[in-house]
This record gives sequence, C-alpha cells and structure tokens, in this order.
Amino acid sequence: MGAKGRDYTACLIVIGNEILSGRTQDANLQHLAVTLNGWGVRLREARVIPDIDQTIVDTVNACRASFDYVFTTGGIGPTHDDITAASIAKAFGVGLVKHEDSFRAMAARYPDQDDFNASRQKMCFIPEGAEAIDNSVSIAPGFQIGNVFVLAGVPSIMRAMLGTLRHRIVGGDPVQSRTVNVFLGEGAVAEGLAAVQDRFPETDIGSYPFYRDGVFGTSLVLRDTDPARLDSALVEVEAMVRSLGVEPQRIEA
Amino acid sequence: MGAKGRDYTACLIVIGNEILSGRTQDANLQHLAVTLNGWGVRLREARVIPDIDQTIVDTVNACRASFDYVFTTGGIGPTHDDITAASIAKAFGVGLVKHEDSFRAMAARYPDQDDFNASRQKMCFIPEGAEAIDNSVSIAPGFQIGNVFVLAGVPSIMRAMLGTLRHRIVGGDPVQSRTVNVFLGEGAVAEGLAAVQDRFPETDIGSYPFYRDGVFGTSLVLRDTDPARLDSALVEVEAMVRSLGVEPQRIEA
Repeated sequence: MGAKGRDYTACLIVIGNEILSGRTQDANLQHLAVTLNGWGVRLREARVIPDIDQTIVDTVNACRASFDYVFTTGGIGPTHDDITAASIAKAFGVGLVKHEDSFRAMAARYPDQDDFNASRQKMCFIPEGAEAIDNSVSIAPGFQIGNVFVLAGVPSIMRAMLGTLRHRIVGGDPVQSRTVNVFLGEGAVAEGLAAVQDRFPETDIGSYPFYRDGVFGTSLVLRDTDPARLDSALVEVEAMVRSLGVEPQRIEA
Repeated sequence: MGAKGRDYTACLIVIGNEILSGRTQDANLQHLAVTLNGWGVRLREARVIPDIDQTIVDTVNACRASFDYVFTTGGIGPTHDDITAASIAKAFGVGLVKHEDSFRAMAARYPDQDDFNASRQKMCFIPEGAEAIDNSVSIAPGFQIGNVFVLAGVPSIMRAMLGTLRHRIVGGDPVQSRTVNVFLGEGAVAEGLAAVQDRFPETDIGSYPFYRDGVFGTSLVLRDTDPARLDSALVEVEAMVRSLGVEPQRIEA
C-alpha cells in the first residue's frame, strides 16, 4: 500500500477498430475498474482508439504523463492490424526485442516450423526494457514498460494477465461503496442529496435512476476510502430519504 | 449525404463516474457506432471521463476541434453531479438559458409546484445558442451547440434522442461490412490476410479470434464504403482461406 491520503490514478486505453465500429462490445473496462478499486487505484479515464500507429503513440504518451498507471487492451495478436507492441516501443523511443522465454514456450506449442510462422513469432517481441506479463491462456505475453501495462483484448486473456499484476501496483486505501435504493425520482431527492454532498465533500455521491417491475426509483451510491466517513454520510442520506416519507432500502454489495 | 470520398468523423464522450467506478457498463457506444455507420459517419474515438467540470470543458474543447461531430452521454439529470450542461456552456463561453418549451412541458407533468422543484427546473436550462434535442421519454431535453450533441446517459432516452438527429448529420457513404468465419487460428491466416490488406489499402480488414462449441476460429471482418471494392477483397480473402485447406463460412449481417 502506498502513501496515506494520496490518490493513485489509472487510465485505460482500449485499442481496437472493432469496438469503434460497433462490432464488439468492450468487456474489459468494468473488470479493470473493479479490480483497481480493490487495489486502491481509481480508474480516472478511458479512451477507445483505432489501430492507427500515430494515434496509439500520441495517446499513450499523453496518458502516461497524466496518470500513475496506464493499461492498454488489444492489438497484441499475430495479424497485420496488431500493432500495439510496435507503437508502444515507438512511444518510448526504443526497439522491439525477442522475449526468449515466450519464444521457447511458443516454439514448443507449435513444433511444426510451418505453424510457428513469422506472424506467431511476432507475438514474442516486446519493447526493449519491458518486463513480460505472463499469459497462462495462449502463451503470447503482455508487457510492462514504465507505468504502461499492455494487455490482451480477449477478455479471458486480459483477466489472466491482470491477475498476475497485483504485486507491481502500488495503491492507496481501497475505495468502498454503499448503495441505497429509493422509490422516488431523482428530482425528488436531488436537493437533499446535494446538501449531504456539501457536508461530505470527500465522499463521492452519485444518483442513478432505474425502472424495475413497473416502478421508477433511484439508486444512491456513496464511495469513499474512509469507511467511518462513508457510514456517516450513509446515515445522513438515509435520514434525508425518510424525511421525504419513503423508507430507503440498503443494498448489500 | 456530404461530399464523395470524404470521411466524416465522430467522437463520443461518456461522462460519468459510474462507468469509471465499474458500477455501470456503458451501453451507448455500440448503438451510436452502428447508427453512425448507417449515416456515413465513422466513430473514431471514445473517451470516458468523470463528472469533473474542468475535465469536461477540456475534453469537449479538444474533441470538437478534432472531429466533425462530438456526442456526449450522461450528466444531464437533476442532481448535483449532473453538470454537463453547465460545463459545455463554459466550454463554449456562453451562459445557460431557460428552454421555454421544455419548461412548460415539465411544469405540466409536475402540476404541484413542490414537485416541479429547482432540481427539475435545472434540466430545462441549456447553453445560449443551443438547439434543443427532443426527449420523448422523460421531457428533459438534450441539446446541440455547434458540432456537439449532448444526450442523456440512460440508454432508452439516449436512443430516443439520437433517433431525432438524422437530418442534422451530414455524412458520406455508409460503411458496409462482410464477415467470414474460418476454423483456423489467427496465426495461420495472418500472412495471407496481410497480403490482401496490402492490395486493398482502403478496405479495413480485421481479424478476431473466437472459441465456440469447443473449437477455436477466427472472424475475418472487411469494412469499406465501396461495395464493389469490398466484394473484390472478400473474394480474395476467401480464396486465401481455401488455399490453406479450409472452407470459409460467409456470415450474413
């Protein structure tokens, strides 16, 4: 755990034309956000960008200067549109080098030299100075260079890679959350909620409308790294809801 | 339809702490991407940012200078964290003004003055010079100012708003796509696919691995605004797959 009271921040860069064309729904942002919450790191921004070399270079360089950690997903496979490793090497001003352990492991998986072709060999090249991130699913490694962590786009592989990174991430206190559902519109609770937010400026208080079983309601979500402060704010939110003549429903996480 | 051969580009800005915390999965990017494809506009980037005034101002100003169209979702409700309208007014250097039609419609929905409170009234204020975007679901309007279109975050409302915008968007030729599934790994088709891509530089060719019914395969996706060129590239991709001893499966869209 890092310094008390400091926020540790992260940015996700989703690299892939298939997300921007609408072909594929991203399935990695939510998993990364929840995992980082538990590690005391807050996901502060995400960008979805196409497989264009200069766009990747510029985006990675902008984001690694602005956030403690940058994660990328996508573009580390064997095909011509998989350019992430080369673009990130360029962003750092280094070349690509063969990662020998991965190369040996992949050569063993494809004993026929025709199968272990140039396209598959490409996946074993990572930027000079990068540290590989193990991939227990399909061998081809991700990598870390500086504060940038390069992961696969396929969700099962992305999760396997992320799961190996806990010890490389320094975070603060984990963010905890409390949720209260009320069967009132957002407009009915807005004023009272703003008053609680004013008294608890360090607690992140949000409200999200829902419609369920024919009834409109609002989820009130409080988030904070300090559990005592979080519970004090929760008590005030619940009292505010009761003052409107409605019983709040606390939702267990 | 706009000028032939010109690409019309768009960027989506998703505004909302609830996406970045992992509480909520975005459900608007894919719908926007597919809708814009049909209108001859390509979604080129998406950013997910928190409910922070300066972040919204800076992101909107950066994106509206870089893309033909900018769409935002989220943050136009009645609560304290709904700051999108105010931040976008600030980005354009204008104030907020009451949108009279929406104000009257909402006053009629909430005949009791206690219900039509300041929080709900806030939703009827839009930047000076903006044009409202009708909301058939919950009255509170979205708005367009310059090339920026401000939509609700709730998917049903976002879709209703977007559906009214066709006549305000000038696009080029719609992007069409063709998909071929092959029961081969990406690494097996990579070299042949790159050769087709080289011959068809204007066609966007991507490959996406899948695992279904216990079998690994790869979806090959071709996208182009020119249907004749697209079909020529498709024929070459299918011939390449057959040369590897596998029958390609054309997937109807």
